[in-house]
Amino acid sequence: MSILFAASGFTASDWRPKIEAFAGGRAVAVHGEDDYDTAAIRYALVWKPPSGLLASLPKLEVVFNLGAGVDALAADPTLPDCPLVRAVEPDMTMRMTEWIVLQVLTHHRQALAYLDQQRSREWRDLDQPPASAVRVGMMGMGTLGSDAADVLRRLGFQVAGWSRTPKTVDGVEMFSGDAGLDRFLRRTDILVVLLPLTDATRGILNMNLFEKLARNGALPGPILINAGRGGLQVEADILKALSTGALEAASLDVFETEPLSEVHPFWSHPRVIVTPHVAAVSDPTAICRNILGQIDAYERGEPLQNVVDLKVGY
Amino acid sequence: MSILFAASGFTASDWRPKIEAFAGGRAVAVHGEDDYDTAAIRYALVWKPPSGLLASLPKLEVVFNLGAGVDALAADPTLPDCPLVRAVEPDMTMRMTEWIVLQVLTHHRQALAYLDQQRSREWRDLDQPPASAVRVGMMGMGTLGSDAADVLRRLGFQVAGWSRTPKTVDGVEMFSGDAGLDRFLRRTDILVVLLPLTDATRGILNMNLFEKLARNGALPGPILINAGRGGLQVEADILKALSTGALEAASLDVFETEPLSEVHPFWSHPRVIVTPHVAAVSDPTAICRNILGQIDAYERGEPLQNVVDLKVGY
Repeated sequence: MSILFAASGFTASDWRPKIEAFAGGRAVAVHGEDDYDTAAIRYALVWKPPSGLLASLPKLEVVFNLGAGVDALAADPTLPDCPLVRAVEPDMTMRMTEWIVLQVLTHHRQALAYLDQQRSREWRDLDQPPASAVRVGMMGMGTLGSDAADVLRRLGFQVAGWSRTPKTVDGVEMFSGDAGLDRFLRRTDILVVLLPLTDATRGILNMNLFEKLARNGALPGPILINAGRGGLQVEADILKALSTGALEAASLDVFETEPLSEVHPFWSHPRVIVTPHVAAVSDPTAICRNILGQIDAYERGEPLQNVVDLKVGY
Repeated sequence: MSILFAASGFTASDWRPKIEAFAGGRAVAVHGEDDYDTAAIRYALVWKPPSGLLASLPKLEVVFNLGAGVDALAADPTLPDCPLVRAVEPDMTMRMTEWIVLQVLTHHRQALAYLDQQRSREWRDLDQPPASAVRVGMMGMGTLGSDAADVLRRLGFQVAGWSRTPKTVDGVEMFSGDAGLDRFLRRTDILVVLLPLTDATRGILNMNLFEKLARNGALPGPILINAGRGGLQVEADILKALSTGALEAASLDVFETEPLSEVHPFWSHPRVIVTPHVAAVSDPTAICRNILGQIDAYERGEPLQNVVDLKVGY
């Protein structure tokens, strides 16, 4: 036996056959369903596993996280000292780009206003700037952010990026660090957030930040689109910003507490689009192909891809 | 005096300063507002001008249509025998691609279903195929269709195109003519229509065509997206197809009669998105820069761009 699947909130019966299909004969155990010898496990495929579980596996060599965000694992003091790989694969990137582009275009093309007009049978065109007059700012320029930025640029938007450390991306004006953040925000009409959740980013989407966004742009006001992590955002500040005009509208796929409480004001806010953390849902087949392919490569002596640096948190 | 503006439904006060800005000193007259000498007009910038107006201009050299569709002009028996140029410029292409991509992603990512869930405060993820499992078919592969196809391909969709005459487009599987239409429809989950309205295309979007679309795809059923001309579609058939399942949903920017009648069933159909012919609204500045630039080039002896072939109708 060598591979353990321990993913809370995932349907194991969907995942077991996909893991086995790519496992090349390696034994697969599902935590909570199978009896297994903890000393036989070399690889763990996990999502928010019970604290202490990974520490109980003496021969564990690599932990594969089934999503891109590793904040839950990184916060576990019992996490063993072996490589932690996060899922970054083309299927997930494609899905995230779909969601981001859909949200940007929904706000840019005033889709909610046109749906309202449709409900009242009103035939009326609204003033519409072209994409080339609208400045999108992407916070977080890893694999996901860079891909979405590329498509938005192809659509004609003025796209800039912000990253913690200096980075160069073809065709995208880049800003970095605390020093570059204010200038980045002041030129941004639509803020798209794909940051990891770390000590440095927790609560970064707050009133102070919203008030720095561009107020003189082609759109009625700044737009916030967050598909990173709920812990990045201060939801009370988002509501306040929507009422003061510091934000015009928002699309949120992630929340401080998930599922979002039934009584949360976001559900019924006319200028907030809520999706239930589905921007880039892991596709079992694509993720399993990627992870089991990485295990094969690792056993041939090749380096692991997308290993998390726990000092920075992603 | 040399340039006449005659565009019904356009606000002349928006257009006059833009034409004058690029006119290089040429005199500009607005039909219905200014007195002008018909023998002084060399160029006409028009949208659905009164029948007979163009025939009354003895020195007219070129007619510039202020949109891409020339079906109204082509149907006018008094149209004089001088070159007719239709507006095709990057701003309009960008706007059309925005609208097409927004509609494709809205259906693909089930945005209306998620908005319904939001209204009922329901946190639930829906089965979501990746773009790579979805086949988009583009009817009409001119400048607009080819550009939208390119972005959809970049997003991961399987994109094919259909055109009246055989055509090659990089990276897009192409079908053509009556012979290729059935095969094109049978492999299409999302049908995007940007055809011109001609005798050969009037009413082409009918029950017979809808029933040939793919029924075994990754989506619940076929989707129709029409941003071409309302005369392409048989609206009674669209409603019937939505009820039989031959169509799952539709996004329509154009209609048999515009504005759409207040009592039309499309307004309140839960699976129809109506927009009021705004997919690619002409931007006065961009259109005027393009047309007046063409006049300059024409007077230098260079060929006109996007001249309509009235025998085929576009």
